[in-house]
Amino acid sequence: MKFTIKRSAFLKSLADVQRAISSRTTIPILTGLKIIANDEGLTLTGSDSDISIEAFIPISEEENLLTIEKTGGIVLQARFFSEIVKKLPEETMTIEILDHFQALITSATASFTINGLDPNNYPHLPIIDTSESFTLPVNLFKQVIGQTVIAISTHESRPILTGVNIVIENGKFLAVATDSHRLSQRVIPIEMNDEQASKKYNIIIPGKSLIELSRTLDETSDTIEMMITENQVLFKSENMYFYSRLLEGYYPDTKRLIPDNSSTEISFNASALLGSIERASLLSHEGKNNVVKITINPDLIEISGNSPDVGNVKEELDYLSVEGEPIELSFNPDYMKDALRTFGQTDIKIKFTSPVRPFILVPSENGQDFIQLITPVRTF
Amino acid sequence: MKFTIKRSAFLKSLADVQRAISSRTTIPILTGLKIIANDEGLTLTGSDSDISIEAFIPISEEENLLTIEKTGGIVLQARFFSEIVKKLPEETMTIEILDHFQALITSATASFTINGLDPNNYPHLPIIDTSESFTLPVNLFKQVIGQTVIAISTHESRPILTGVNIVIENGKFLAVATDSHRLSQRVIPIEMNDEQASKKYNIIIPGKSLIELSRTLDETSDTIEMMITENQVLFKSENMYFYSRLLEGYYPDTKRLIPDNSSTEISFNASALLGSIERASLLSHEGKNNVVKITINPDLIEISGNSPDVGNVKEELDYLSVEGEPIELSFNPDYMKDALRTFGQTDIKIKFTSPVRPFILVPSENGQDFIQLITPVRTF
Repeated sequence: MKFTIKRSAFLKSLADVQRAISSRTTIPILTGLKIIANDEGLTLTGSDSDISIEAFIPISEEENLLTIEKTGGIVLQARFFSEIVKKLPEETMTIEILDHFQALITSATASFTINGLDPNNYPHLPIIDTSESFTLPVNLFKQVIGQTVIAISTHESRPILTGVNIVIENGKFLAVATDSHRLSQRVIPIEMNDEQASKKYNIIIPGKSLIELSRTLDETSDTIEMMITENQVLFKSENMYFYSRLLEGYYPDTKRLIPDNSSTEISFNASALLGSIERASLLSHEGKNNVVKITINPDLIEISGNSPDVGNVKEELDYLSVEGEPIELSFNPDYMKDALRTFGQTDIKIKFTSPVRPFILVPSENGQDFIQLITPVRTF
Repeated sequence: MKFTIKRSAFLKSLADVQRAISSRTTIPILTGLKIIANDEGLTLTGSDSDISIEAFIPISEEENLLTIEKTGGIVLQARFFSEIVKKLPEETMTIEILDHFQALITSATASFTINGLDPNNYPHLPIIDTSESFTLPVNLFKQVIGQTVIAISTHESRPILTGVNIVIENGKFLAVATDSHRLSQRVIPIEMNDEQASKKYNIIIPGKSLIELSRTLDETSDTIEMMITENQVLFKSENMYFYSRLLEGYYPDTKRLIPDNSSTEISFNASALLGSIERASLLSHEGKNNVVKITINPDLIEISGNSPDVGNVKEELDYLSVEGEPIELSFNPDYMKDALRTFGQTDIKIKFTSPVRPFILVPSENGQDFIQLITPVRTF
């Protein structure tokens, strides 16, 4: 193998592929980056066995300044190799394989000879043997990921809850995540062909995979293809394949958790309420119990917190409208902050039923397709 | 005490004072910030008993929007308090002392009540009973600090080497630091009155103090006053007093370490050479011995490195001029990087005497007042 390439083009693909490469893997070759040069271009591959990413750099894109003198392949230690590529002196670099899987990297008068591995020993990527695929709009799909992954569990005690449950049926794509204290659910429309329309797809994608996927998706493509098999999912965009394993098991039935009536409804600008919650949480973080209290009655709508060792905080809230019964309940302000951030600058409605039942946050406009749910903390 | 102030003005002084406040102190009150309001303005004080910083916010500077309704003082837990001030909703805030040293902090509809301590229990700052003072230009002094602190020792085994030795005599201000593997020395002119001219001042200021001092010095003042006592030094700028303890003991005689002749001299642009050293050090950091080799002979001027497990690197160097004997020696590239960074974009001369004797880096122009010295590593 011998090729010359513009370093910035190589680094861009390398950065994407590196998201899948962990230095803490138990399989030594997986700390490496696989590079394959063929007549069409370069393929870079990284994997931590949960996630695998393959990026393609085509010769046909002239701005890559890619010329391939000799095809072939190698596996190079990813972190160290990427540092070298970043620091090289010239705009382009040349990589040539010498004997014994050594790579010679040259740029201007600088040359590195580093030890590599046989690419034939690199594990094979999963085979996705399905012709069925769904098309998702990149921007909307990134939004769905951002809105739901906040609610995944970070504890391995119930592994299934570390994933996002995706259910596709009747032209709808539903994503839901819960750590059993809070829940986030988003529904978007999806195009289905006749064969797909007669089926139901129900998978659980690890939250970590979706977070990494979201980071690799940029606005260069409008859409991304999703292909589902028994235990893998593949997201295909132009020049990038992103594979993730699926979590096995049954996701809990979350529909029954979402209350369908409410006794108190109050509207806020999400970002204004976020500011108030952030202030109150400064105090709750210093105390033993990380809770703040919201009080809604005809005379007073405020949040407050009290940590005897540190002090107390209270703030009258700037709300848009309120209706229903007076209520007072306590909650973990960190859950509330996470939820509010997913709404950005929009106006939201909070619907309460009782001080001991979960309450929900929905957008003031179109409150059906996006729901954040939080379980209160009992303080009595 | 009760006052109202523009939050941004308060935060600016607070950020300076917080440099002296450590959360890991064994004296609980020193995790606090002392606030004193008198008829002229607010004084904020922080200390970790090595460094003490006092910042003054005068009523007379109208942009501070400072009004003092009632004088007095309190000590508040610095980290937590500063987070509150940062997050408050309005441009201004009001702080009022309630009974039992509780502080009521209000801004718009938000109010915090936090527990504080009696300011009378805060340790007294050192008393600087000298009328003698030196005037230093802020920018030049910051440069001296940046150039010398890179060579202080970070090991407590020889505490004296964790400081910078400052010697003032004959109208010269000399700063020198060494960790016994490398040395950095800078000399600048200093104005002395007749009484000072007859004396010699020799002190050791902890490197950590100088680093923090440098961070608090901004370009709002042209000069800073330095006052020296038996075991303390005070740097006074407009509205800020910075106290540091001095290190006790004798600093080693560094003059004899600096070679006064050379057998090989080579010139580089400091920043170009830095690029080459950074590349070579990528490899040396992966290997067992963190060394790179420089080779200077009529056919070849290059740096190279070899770590059998990882690979090797070599690069022909882009030099400006060379004279003297061929030489080949090895050094720690991290010392070289630190040294080169202190020269910025300027041209430098490296002077070698032998592969086992220290070599020095000096500016190509005016090579007397600034010297970086590095001891080679024996590899044979």
